[in-house]
Amino acid sequence: MIRIATAECFTHGLVGKEIHALSRGYPLDFGWRPDPALPCVSLVAALFIPTLSGVHHILGIRPVPPFEVIDDIKVYDQQGDEMMALKMAEAVREITQADIGIGTTAGIGKGGIAVVTTEIKLLTTSGIDADLRSSPAGRILERQAHGVKKTLHTLECLLMNRIPPECGEDFLRLD
Amino acid sequence: MIRIATAECFTHGLVGKEIHALSRGYPLDFGWRPDPALPCVSLVAALFIPTLSGVHHILGIRPVPPFEVIDDIKVYDQQGDEMMALKMAEAVREITQADIGIGTTAGIGKGGIAVVTTEIKLLTTSGIDADLRSSPAGRILERQAHGVKKTLHTLECLLMNRIPPECGEDFLRLD
Repeated sequence: MIRIATAECFTHGLVGKEIHALSRGYPLDFGWRPDPALPCVSLVAALFIPTLSGVHHILGIRPVPPFEVIDDIKVYDQQGDEMMALKMAEAVREITQADIGIGTTAGIGKGGIAVVTTEIKLLTTSGIDADLRSSPAGRILERQAHGVKKTLHTLECLLMNRIPPECGEDFLRLD
Repeated sequence: MIRIATAECFTHGLVGKEIHALSRGYPLDFGWRPDPALPCVSLVAALFIPTLSGVHHILGIRPVPPFEVIDDIKVYDQQGDEMMALKMAEAVREITQADIGIGTTAGIGKGGIAVVTTEIKLLTTSGIDADLRSSPAGRILERQAHGVKKTLHTLECLLMNRIPPECGEDFLRLD
C-alpha cells in the first residue's frame, strides 16, 4: 500500500479526493482510468491551503515570497508557483510520513505541480494559462480541471516507473 | 472578514471547497444560496483527513479510540463521530487561528458535524444513516451530500446569529 498526501491550492483538494475515491471504490470525477497494474494506494490526507497563514501554520514552512497577496491568498508567478509546489509537496510528505507528497499552486501562469518521494522529484504545470487576479472564473476552473488530470497522470507515471528521461513526458525530473 | 478552517472526513473537503467558492465567486455545487446579509467569509484551509495517522500528525491531537480501523481509516459509531467531529473542529480552529472551526466525520450512523468558535459549539448530524464498512458507495455519497449541505446550513445559522435555543434547528448547542 503506497501512502500519498497532498497539499493543494488551485486544485482545491480534488487531487486527494480523487486518489481517495480510487482507493475506496467511489466514482471518479476526472476521467482517470489508471493502468490496471497500478499499485494499491491510500490517501493519508488532502490539504487545501489557499492562504499564506494556512501554509505557515499547517505545513510549518516559510512560504516563497508571493508576487501579490489577496485576502491572505498567495499569488505567485510561474517560477514562484513551481518553487512553492515543490516546497508544499515535500512538507506534506514529511509531516504525514507518506511515501509520496503532492503539491499544487497556480497564480499567474500555468501553475506548478510537484510529485515527490524521498528519491524522485517530478515538476510540471497544468498546461493552461490563467491569472488568478483577472481571469474569469471559467478560465480558472479550466486550469484547475487540467491541473487535476495532469497531477494524476504524473502520479501514475511515477507509480508505474514511467519517469523521465525514458518516457518523454513534459515534466521535469529534478532529483 | 470571518476566517474559517475545516477538518473533514466524510465530506472529503467539500465543505471547505464550497466556502472558498462562495468567497471567491466560483460556482457553488450543493445548491447553497446564503442569505444576502451573510458576513464576508474566507477559507484559511480545508483539511480532508480520513486516516488516524493524518489526524495525529496534522491536527496534533489524540484521536478518539475508533470502533474499527480499515487501512488506517478511522471508523466510529455515532457517539464516537460526534466526539471526534468536535475535537477536529476545535483543533483546526486553534492551529490555523481561524474564527470558526468545522469538523466532520461519519462511520457507522449519521455522522458528526461540529461548527465551533471560542464561545459557541454547535453539533449535528447529516441526517442520513449509513455504514462505512458495508453500505454501497451510493448510500455513502448520499450521506456525504446531505452532510455538506447540513454543515453549510449550520455555519450560516451561526454566522446569522440564528442559534439554539431560539431557532428550533436540530443541532445541539454544547457551550
